[in-house]
Amino acid sequence: MIKSVSGEVAIGIDKKGLRQESDSMGKIEVPADRYWGAQTERSLHHFNIGGDVMPREVYHAYGIVKHAAAEVNCEAGRLDETKAKAIIQAAEEAAEGALDDHFPLCVWQTGSGTQTNMNVNEVLANRAIQLLGGEIGSKKPVHPNDHVNMGQSSNDSFPTAMHVAMVMELERHLFPELQKLHNAIEHKAKEWMDVVKIGRTHLQDAVPLTVGQEWSGWAAQLKESLHRLKSVEKELFELAAGGTAVGTGLNAPKGFSRAIAKKIAQITSYPFVTAPNKFASLGGLDAMVATMSALRGVAVVLLKIANDTRWLASGPRCGLGELHLPENEPGSSIMPGKVNPTQCEAMIMVCMQVMGLDAAVAFAGSQGNLQLNVTRPLVIMNTLHASRLLRDAAKAFREFSVEGTTLNNARIQKYIDNSLMLVTALAPVVGYDGAARIAHMGDVEGLSLKEAALKSGLIDEKRFDEHVKPRLMAGHGVEGA
Amino acid sequence: MIKSVSGEVAIGIDKKGLRQESDSMGKIEVPADRYWGAQTERSLHHFNIGGDVMPREVYHAYGIVKHAAAEVNCEAGRLDETKAKAIIQAAEEAAEGALDDHFPLCVWQTGSGTQTNMNVNEVLANRAIQLLGGEIGSKKPVHPNDHVNMGQSSNDSFPTAMHVAMVMELERHLFPELQKLHNAIEHKAKEWMDVVKIGRTHLQDAVPLTVGQEWSGWAAQLKESLHRLKSVEKELFELAAGGTAVGTGLNAPKGFSRAIAKKIAQITSYPFVTAPNKFASLGGLDAMVATMSALRGVAVVLLKIANDTRWLASGPRCGLGELHLPENEPGSSIMPGKVNPTQCEAMIMVCMQVMGLDAAVAFAGSQGNLQLNVTRPLVIMNTLHASRLLRDAAKAFREFSVEGTTLNNARIQKYIDNSLMLVTALAPVVGYDGAARIAHMGDVEGLSLKEAALKSGLIDEKRFDEHVKPRLMAGHGVEGA
Amino acid sequence: MIKSVSGEVAIGIDKKGLRQESDSMGKIEVPADRYWGAQTERSLHHFNIGGDVMPREVYHAYGIVKHAAAEVNCEAGRLDETKAKAIIQAAEEAAEGALDDHFPLCVWQTGSGTQTNMNVNEVLANRAIQLLGGEIGSKKPVHPNDHVNMGQSSNDSFPTAMHVAMVMELERHLFPELQKLHNAIEHKAKEWMDVVKIGRTHLQDAVPLTVGQEWSGWAAQLKESLHRLKSVEKELFELAAGGTAVGTGLNAPKGFSRAIAKKIAQITSYPFVTAPNKFASLGGLDAMVATMSALRGVAVVLLKIANDTRWLASGPRCGLGELHLPENEPGSSIMPGKVNPTQCEAMIMVCMQVMGLDAAVAFAGSQGNLQLNVTRPLVIMNTLHASRLLRDAAKAFREFSVEGTTLNNARIQKYIDNSLMLVTALAPVVGYDGAARIAHMGDVEGLSLKEAALKSGLIDEKRFDEHVKPRLMAGHGVEGA
Amino acid sequence: MIKSVSGEVAIGIDKKGLRQESDSMGKIEVPADRYWGAQTERSLHHFNIGGDVMPREVYHAYGIVKHAAAEVNCEAGRLDETKAKAIIQAAEEAAEGALDDHFPLCVWQTGSGTQTNMNVNEVLANRAIQLLGGEIGSKKPVHPNDHVNMGQSSNDSFPTAMHVAMVMELERHLFPELQKLHNAIEHKAKEWMDVVKIGRTHLQDAVPLTVGQEWSGWAAQLKESLHRLKSVEKELFELAAGGTAVGTGLNAPKGFSRAIAKKIAQITSYPFVTAPNKFASLGGLDAMVATMSALRGVAVVLLKIANDTRWLASGPRCGLGELHLPENEPGSSIMPGKVNPTQCEAMIMVCMQVMGLDAAVAFAGSQGNLQLNVTRPLVIMNTLHASRLLRDAAKAFREFSVEGTTLNNARIQKYIDNSLMLVTALAPVVGYDGAARIAHMGDVEGLSLKEAALKSGLIDEKRFDEHVKPRLMAGHGVEGA
Repeated sequence: MIKSVSGEVAIGIDKKGLRQESDSMGKIEVPADRYWGAQTERSLHHFNIGGDVMPREVYHAYGIVKHAAAEVNCEAGRLDETKAKAIIQAAEEAAEGALDDHFPLCVWQTGSGTQTNMNVNEVLANRAIQLLGGEIGSKKPVHPNDHVNMGQSSNDSFPTAMHVAMVMELERHLFPELQKLHNAIEHKAKEWMDVVKIGRTHLQDAVPLTVGQEWSGWAAQLKESLHRLKSVEKELFELAAGGTAVGTGLNAPKGFSRAIAKKIAQITSYPFVTAPNKFASLGGLDAMVATMSALRGVAVVLLKIANDTRWLASGPRCGLGELHLPENEPGSSIMPGKVNPTQCEAMIMVCMQVMGLDAAVAFAGSQGNLQLNVTRPLVIMNTLHASRLLRDAAKAFREFSVEGTTLNNARIQKYIDNSLMLVTALAPVVGYDGAARIAHMGDVEGLSLKEAALKSGLIDEKRFDEHVKPRLMAGHGVEGA
Repeated sequence: MIKSVSGEVAIGIDKKGLRQESDSMGKIEVPADRYWGAQTERSLHHFNIGGDVMPREVYHAYGIVKHAAAEVNCEAGRLDETKAKAIIQAAEEAAEGALDDHFPLCVWQTGSGTQTNMNVNEVLANRAIQLLGGEIGSKKPVHPNDHVNMGQSSNDSFPTAMHVAMVMELERHLFPELQKLHNAIEHKAKEWMDVVKIGRTHLQDAVPLTVGQEWSGWAAQLKESLHRLKSVEKELFELAAGGTAVGTGLNAPKGFSRAIAKKIAQITSYPFVTAPNKFASLGGLDAMVATMSALRGVAVVLLKIANDTRWLASGPRCGLGELHLPENEPGSSIMPGKVNPTQCEAMIMVCMQVMGLDAAVAFAGSQGNLQLNVTRPLVIMNTLHASRLLRDAAKAFREFSVEGTTLNNARIQKYIDNSLMLVTALAPVVGYDGAARIAHMGDVEGLSLKEAALKSGLIDEKRFDEHVKPRLMAGHGVEGA
Repeated sequence: MIKSVSGEVAIGIDKKGLRQESDSMGKIEVPADRYWGAQTERSLHHFNIGGDVMPREVYHAYGIVKHAAAEVNCEAGRLDETKAKAIIQAAEEAAEGALDDHFPLCVWQTGSGTQTNMNVNEVLANRAIQLLGGEIGSKKPVHPNDHVNMGQSSNDSFPTAMHVAMVMELERHLFPELQKLHNAIEHKAKEWMDVVKIGRTHLQDAVPLTVGQEWSGWAAQLKESLHRLKSVEKELFELAAGGTAVGTGLNAPKGFSRAIAKKIAQITSYPFVTAPNKFASLGGLDAMVATMSALRGVAVVLLKIANDTRWLASGPRCGLGELHLPENEPGSSIMPGKVNPTQCEAMIMVCMQVMGLDAAVAFAGSQGNLQLNVTRPLVIMNTLHASRLLRDAAKAFREFSVEGTTLNNARIQKYIDNSLMLVTALAPVVGYDGAARIAHMGDVEGLSLKEAALKSGLIDEKRFDEHVKPRLMAGHGVEGA
Repeated sequence: MIKSVSGEVAIGIDKKGLRQESDSMGKIEVPADRYWGAQTERSLHHFNIGGDVMPREVYHAYGIVKHAAAEVNCEAGRLDETKAKAIIQAAEEAAEGALDDHFPLCVWQTGSGTQTNMNVNEVLANRAIQLLGGEIGSKKPVHPNDHVNMGQSSNDSFPTAMHVAMVMELERHLFPELQKLHNAIEHKAKEWMDVVKIGRTHLQDAVPLTVGQEWSGWAAQLKESLHRLKSVEKELFELAAGGTAVGTGLNAPKGFSRAIAKKIAQITSYPFVTAPNKFASLGGLDAMVATMSALRGVAVVLLKIANDTRWLASGPRCGLGELHLPENEPGSSIMPGKVNPTQCEAMIMVCMQVMGLDAAVAFAGSQGNLQLNVTRPLVIMNTLHASRLLRDAAKAFREFSVEGTTLNNARIQKYIDNSLMLVTALAPVVGYDGAARIAHMGDVEGLSLKEAALKSGLIDEKRFDEHVKPRLMAGHGVEGA
């Protein structure tokens, strides 16, 4: 975790109006109360698209990356300690979110993320200059490219920040939230492990299982999807830093790759390492695409759970009606007293959205050209957003639907009593064809299963009662036979 | 267009703290300075997902719908004039965006949009109450359901607002912006109609065309995609209003469907009509899915144009290098002097994102159940956002890339001089096989086409010069032979 | 339509073993009993991928294109009549499917479709040579490139064949089949227009509608989706022919574009015209992408219909159970007597597959480069296949599900009798809040709506009976209020 | 592996005409020379959609499943040895493909795969009856449900067969083929590890790397995608068998789940185990969705490699022209001598198709309802097909493109000599801004980098030569700095 920093120089520039900044293209005016420089300002001018800004998490992660780079450069004697300390403090402030107001850029910018990297470089340089008592905008004593970006390129630092941001999102937010939802579902599964209910396959009445078994299936699917996500996270631990512009590491000193990965691991406490092939790291976005796939895998599961839930709760009088969901709000502006499975609906939409975000990410992942894939801002935005959608929806679904769900036991029992599909238990006794005849007779003549069975003459009451025991038919566990 | 309203009662509630509101589930406290009521507050509590809020445009459109409903109800004598006037003023304020701060809900809410409809009903009711000197929160004299929602359900009013919002987005924003981009491209096409360049098929050298012809192809693709969008807009003119809860029109008076559509057409000046089958309008979202498809069609075209542009501008020394794109910003944090096709990259990402948003919309569109499709918030958010992304990207791409593009005439000429594929002009003279031999000889021996042709003995210089005339080979128009 | 041809020379080569053929790369052996030549053979060798062959429909359409080209070339005096006649007869044979065995190529070949065009050129040339008494493989007197391909390139003839194939598939197969399904659904809608049933929104009990209204919604959705498809078909009528290699029309005579489109229109009786911009036609695949979008639109609708159908038929005892679907086959290998909504399931899978095929087509459509889009084989395969899937599934669904569907009137009536949501009809009388109280009381105390209403004291029996009339609540038509 | 079986009774039924078969719905005629029974015949009648048949691999895997079930049932004394032996022999014949002609069903059938399971049951029963000298169609002594399907349901046996089929496809076909392609690329990477070339980011000239480094990136991406696929394969090893109809294992004896998984592991030699939660296995298809995701991951990588390859080979005179691809076939029907990157194009289309197939699979995976997901046929068809597409395309791409690729060394050197981006090596010496000035001067004045550098006065020749050494700039490995 990032240790809190208490710089003696308060964050912020107490000025009004405009300030002149410059880059290799010349001079440009920027708001005087902002740390950013010329390239950020140019990007603001040229990229005002769709209202989507680069996610905060990218800047927080970038703070960690710049912090690590400064330490490595300082330890190697390439960056003097004064500058390094100032950069590190500024970077820590960025990592903590204290500089968020100085990162205004649109996500739809250059596909390498260069403008966001330069935004970070400029802000940290000016903040460091401020800390060191220099003139903001002077690039002295701290230069955004020569010092803050030392040993780095956008091409390697941006994907590094992507991986760091994604790992922190998963570890701190999504994993715990999915685990909690899993636990809540599993809790219900255990609570209701002995409540026998009718099974449904093809939406048609089938043989019995218990409510707990049904819920255990959801829990198992969710657990497996979380496991899959954790498995793919390993790929995120591999960092591009040290590849610089094209993967060769030009202008970074020997050993930089390993050193910066190690430093990032220390700062974050996650096991980051340097990626084994930097050309792959810059030209592709495969770990992110795989992460997005795994997020989609979670969505596929949650969509199923939410869909099952709302159907099982359908009614109250003209649906399946096995579950009572919590009544959180009035359901209709016109139908008084109506209550709807709104958490399920929100979850379903979220899952569909995740699947759409995934489609864009996979497309983007395939479109690298030669030494660079220039769809990174899209990929990190969608992947972070998918994670956030899933965690927030998982939380709401758990709190406002799963935890408050209760059973309509009368309805559940009624289905068990009425269904003909328990005839399946007779198939080993009277054969498949005989059992089919019994079921058919029951259906056509409106009989109960027992009535039909006895009427068929294929079985007597004693043996019927021995075999047709719903609770026994449901077995005892989740592993089947 | 909506006429500006100058109510005598200023917009806003000058109170602090909390106020009690109620709905059919009971009482709840809301911020005292907000117009919203109990159901909005409940939704805020239960749906805090992903940071995505319902688009403003939906509320503006809802203002128009509520305005129209109040007028129709008033004219029919169902709503007294005093209430109607107050509701109409409030609705106009909503339509103009003056009440935006009172519409805080998350897009991931109930899939019918009921919470947003109730948010509108509550805000307009309280604002109308305020205008009429009543007590905010009292539901008197204006009740959110009984008066503001009169003759409506979320189930018909939300898709009505979706269509109205979408039409206004297209007409006011996307259509003009795509037209401007088309014009800019066509302008270049005309300017460069006589500059002969090498054609490329399969990325390989092919026969010549002119730069203008190449750009004309882009213009034609864009024009056609805009035409397709306009064609699908017709479906958006059909409104669900009057279907109420399930499509039957229960609790709306006879004639309400036609009357409200007519009123909305008057208010907006777009040719809205009532939808011919309300069960289809509520159970499906087909017009929106079709609109999204057409937006995707625009994205497919723009992606191609942006991709071509950046490849034609690749280099400067080691790429195709036929185009000079404007140098808007430094291109690299590590490679000094590098300039990149950043507008193309932003456009490409935007187009990919649109394709992802479309995937989610089509999925959602297929998931209606019985009398309702509960994925509406997703669908309207994605479709509006796709439109905004395309228009903003089209604007930036036009201003910062297309309009400033120039030709590298020397490079273009060099390719024409060097290519062997002009041999195609000889095929009708020496046959396909003979021409192929000439090209092969040129390739293997490193000869110019003319050298190879003469060396082959298949043609003499005079006839060669007669046939191999790049400008003539390019023809004279865009229709081919 | 293609007139039948009775050549005096029977189709087929009565030889065994191998024959030598050649192209610009040299000699190669081909099966002696096949008409194809060197380039086809090379493609067979190099592209043996996935077992997917180019659809037959492409070759049939190509037969029409080559026929038209030969006529145009002959009429213009560029191709002598003898050769033309032979080519035309061969082309007609191809169009009728009589040469299908000579078109073996994989769909995953060169992205321009050149290999399929050359396959056609080679087969028609050798067949024409055979008809004229020449030596197969000699390229005399009919040369595959110089004569069969005269005035054409793969780059313009392949998209021309795509459009022709697609129009014929739509007109002859999909349109009629969708119309029949629509009619069958509409027939049911009319039959059941007065059967009142409970409506369901959010899967929850809502106000009543009639079964016929419900089915009318499906019919309307389907009709609209068919309309959308017909609208986009207009784009398919525009043909690329005459653009030749890059769109300029090089090596095709002036007027060729219009003449060949006119000829194809005559042969097929569909209103084909020449495309207004050939650079767009070769570099893009927009009309195909739009067609695929419209096919997806059909899938979105059919998925909804099939899904609704199977849920309404769920049960028989533990589901909604309003519909009886035809029992076409035993439903379970283990549960005797089970019957499943199998046609719905097949339809649902088909619709999902169409949505996947569409995703690939849109991606492909965006990936043209400069003068050519090299994803044509994928696009035509998927689009034709989507159409075939939809028509076959529509036919099976109609014959084996829709037409044999009957109502479970007792169940339908029971729901109407039991539901509390008819309380909505009281809202205009007792207000939304009062009505909500009645519904809540009914729910909690297990009362019927009438019992609860009277117990509430908010309304007396006479007025209750006046307002709560399910058939009246359902209104009288499909347009809502 | 399956041991070959030499039954004394030859495979096949030497009869003509029709035979009567029956099931719980009654009698029906089937072709007399086929082993299938009534349910297969009914399916053929009702499902004739799109020409897509259930993949052979499913039947081969089903042979293994039925073999294992019969052994387990026999060892437990539930199935007598005579019947068991006959079923096992028949099952082995199915596994080997010897009964392929008796499995005719369409993939678009019931979503559980019941009809395919019954097809297998019927064919194996009749074949076993034949082996035992019984009357085909009599169900004696071997009954398709009671004996061949003993202890199973379609609901658990079909997903078991899916997993077995998929594992065998991956292990026997895809893994080896991807490995070979990886090796071929890596071989080139090593061969060309010292050939310095210009790097390209944003398609623009960047700093140098070596050709080998570029290829190593592709190899690394491919290796990682293969690794990801192997990781997900573990999930496929978990089998649903023993869950029977709804996951409870009804009608299967205790211990059946573990026993049959162990038996399948023995037969196949792959480490199959029983799935930990059968409700998840039947209600979801998550392992298949994850497998498809991983296949898509391979497609994402191969698309990038193929795209890079064709651009690097673009030209020959007007493109990048660094690579010579093998000339496998003439490239154009109109442009003599043209050679195109056709293998790249086929690969690109294949990858797009895989991405489309994946979209359908993910959608399908999300659509399970309650105890069953009824989209299994779609999912197994698409996933198997995606794998086959990738392996076939990988083989063709390797054999006909990668292995024969050579370098255009002159062109590669020319780019290195001309590029200005080597200025990056001067940034640590003269600062980013100074270096940018040099690059700009070179660009504007048309100078070489050295000329511009010296003219700038920022550096002398000696130091220039020390720093601008392309080979050194490319570093020495693949790990960056």
